[in-house]
Amino acid sequence: MHRRSFLGALAALGSARGASPLVTDGVPRVNTERLRRRLEELSVFGRPPGGSFADGVSRTAFSDADVAGREYVLGEMRGLRLAPRVDPAGNILGRSEASGSGLLPILFGSHIDSVRGGGNFDGDVGSMAALEVVATLQESGRRTRHPLEVVIWAAEESNFGSGLHGSRMAVGQIEPGEWERVQDGVRKGDALRRIGGDPERVAEARRAAGSFHAYLELHVEQGGMLDRAGVPIGIVEGIVTIDDYDVTVRGFANHAGTTPMDARRDALVAASQLVLAVRQIATGEAGKQVGTVGRLTVSPGAPNVVPGEVRMTVEFRDLSGETVRRLGEALKARAAEVARETATAIEVRLSSRHEGARADPTIQGAIEKAAGRLGLQCMRLPSGAGHDAQMMARLGPIGMIFVPSVGGVSHSPRELSRFEDCARGADVLLGTILELDEL
Amino acid sequence: MHRRSFLGALAALGSARGASPLVTDGVPRVNTERLRRRLEELSVFGRPPGGSFADGVSRTAFSDADVAGREYVLGEMRGLRLAPRVDPAGNILGRSEASGSGLLPILFGSHIDSVRGGGNFDGDVGSMAALEVVATLQESGRRTRHPLEVVIWAAEESNFGSGLHGSRMAVGQIEPGEWERVQDGVRKGDALRRIGGDPERVAEARRAAGSFHAYLELHVEQGGMLDRAGVPIGIVEGIVTIDDYDVTVRGFANHAGTTPMDARRDALVAASQLVLAVRQIATGEAGKQVGTVGRLTVSPGAPNVVPGEVRMTVEFRDLSGETVRRLGEALKARAAEVARETATAIEVRLSSRHEGARADPTIQGAIEKAAGRLGLQCMRLPSGAGHDAQMMARLGPIGMIFVPSVGGVSHSPRELSRFEDCARGADVLLGTILELDEL
Repeated sequence: MHRRSFLGALAALGSARGASPLVTDGVPRVNTERLRRRLEELSVFGRPPGGSFADGVSRTAFSDADVAGREYVLGEMRGLRLAPRVDPAGNILGRSEASGSGLLPILFGSHIDSVRGGGNFDGDVGSMAALEVVATLQESGRRTRHPLEVVIWAAEESNFGSGLHGSRMAVGQIEPGEWERVQDGVRKGDALRRIGGDPERVAEARRAAGSFHAYLELHVEQGGMLDRAGVPIGIVEGIVTIDDYDVTVRGFANHAGTTPMDARRDALVAASQLVLAVRQIATGEAGKQVGTVGRLTVSPGAPNVVPGEVRMTVEFRDLSGETVRRLGEALKARAAEVARETATAIEVRLSSRHEGARADPTIQGAIEKAAGRLGLQCMRLPSGAGHDAQMMARLGPIGMIFVPSVGGVSHSPRELSRFEDCARGADVLLGTILELDEL
Repeated sequence: MHRRSFLGALAALGSARGASPLVTDGVPRVNTERLRRRLEELSVFGRPPGGSFADGVSRTAFSDADVAGREYVLGEMRGLRLAPRVDPAGNILGRSEASGSGLLPILFGSHIDSVRGGGNFDGDVGSMAALEVVATLQESGRRTRHPLEVVIWAAEESNFGSGLHGSRMAVGQIEPGEWERVQDGVRKGDALRRIGGDPERVAEARRAAGSFHAYLELHVEQGGMLDRAGVPIGIVEGIVTIDDYDVTVRGFANHAGTTPMDARRDALVAASQLVLAVRQIATGEAGKQVGTVGRLTVSPGAPNVVPGEVRMTVEFRDLSGETVRRLGEALKARAAEVARETATAIEVRLSSRHEGARADPTIQGAIEKAAGRLGLQCMRLPSGAGHDAQMMARLGPIGMIFVPSVGGVSHSPRELSRFEDCARGADVLLGTILELDEL
């Protein structure tokens, strides 16, 4: 009874807005303008002083801007009767009731925290689209069999030495000294309290394996593959595994004027061979794996001194954890050769390993079907960046939908995804939810 | 008359010390122990607190330690009746009278300032050997036809943005803003006054071209060629020309996870090719030329970001200025190729050019003859490092004698030349002076 009157109220609300959604092939379509409005409303929290939407956002987790942005989201969720709550990890969770009883919820959402000097799309698109999907379903009067659960993960971007905070807590992956870490003079435990979390009760934020029907996340690609291909929808095959290595090359520092070429043990000459080897290793076999040397420092670093030591990072990423490990082995083998050839000593040490996750094939198929119904071209691609979805993959089936990032730019005020593309992504999210709701 | 009584006094002094030098093939030999004593006495000025001779020295130019070391040298020169004076550039000059009238002086010496954390041989050996040569000649009662002029150059090591201060002033090469430069909060003009110089009168320190018969400098090699070859005497063929380039490689910084290998414009991959190209260019033709990338910085420098920009230094050195320029042209050509291949922009800018100098062939021959008389093996080699001699080469014929640096180590507390080797170098310096005195 309560449910019927609730839906009646919602239908009335939809009418009051004069909005009865367009329906394509039986699936209601989202309201592009409303999605855009929410993205613009959210963008003011953390906007540079005197700036506009195009100037991006610095809504770093636990900051005043984050607190204000979360309040905005909580208000919108209340308006959608999602009865939002904040769990002890700081995650915002809301739920809409379902017609089927005892069925597992379909969980979907993203995050609203940004990097310092970030854009208004990374995380925001998936978060505002989740609200838009709920709003559209309510307007259409359509009720799903499975409960719909919207989640806005806390502190997805790197903070206090690691990212994916909210989803990590949901799988119980608390890191050593997690709450004692200090950033900008603040302990993480205290930072968490600022957004309504509680480090002492964080275990209550843990979700059980098998506690959701599916986890879905719409996100901007952050790379340029969709944009270059002119394809509006990406079906994520999975989130890559990332192995990071610290490499130290030890040669011998000496006077550049008095040390003949054949008497040198030049750490930078050896390191340069390794930089090129990393590229060769990554491109030497078919596939989408990548290899990067992003940081490299030379000691002593004077124009007239043969470099004595180089420290560098090497990172390999691929959907296949096995491939990532094999590339690391190839690096070690090549490093040993280079060390022999250059009379240097090279140490290759794995500094961190981030296990990726495969997207569920059934969900990938559902996304493809949903896009097809809307006549939207799609392509499959890996996510090279990490996402909360990879944590959820430990608990149940996941899927991710990407929309194009213009020029592949991300983590920058210049990050841009067209509102039309964002709305098409939201349409596909909605369609995928309805596909999966049948299962 | 005065001269005779002066020499008589000196002979008496020699007898008082009980020292009548050993003579080989008509050439008096230096006193190894006395040379060692002076090196050890000098070493206390700037010695690390609580350290010993083996802990090296920090006698940076214009410092308290430099002032004290110069006082020590002035005292020793007074003891040798060299009537030392300090010129407005801070150079210490002393003279012994000659038998021939109207002949040009034979100028010889070195410097006593050191780098921060330097050793007790760079500069000191040539300076103390110059005194030892005078002492030995006085003891032997031998008088040269040409006046002998001992010079201890001020501030040879890099200070206030450039080195070879004293000899540069002697050739009138004052750099723009020379006296206004600030180091450790002190203006160079004021620093110069601390050692008895005067920036306003520095033009008076200038020497005329053709004002000396020969300039000779004994120095430690600072490289490992003599040590590796087991040869005690190096005949310097000249001081290399040094061209320094600033190279900027501009690619495009992007997310390492979301940017496929074939879409990257990785500045570090391009720079690494250039590092290897510098080595190839330097070793690609016969000769002793060297090429070095000593400094390289990567931006933004994060493990998960494709490098957007690399700045690096490239330095080429060779006796032949023409060769050095040709290597620079090869660098530019290779940079253009690498830029095309890697879709980066590479700018190669000459940042400084230090013209080298050839040693006079007659003086090289005199050194060889002097070494031969003493039964000392010698080899010809370039000086890869800069020396005051290269400035003097603009005014007249120069020659340099090298003694071995153990392990080729220099500009380090571990810098070491055996006292025996230093004394053999001093013997050759003395023998060369006598050879040239005949001309």
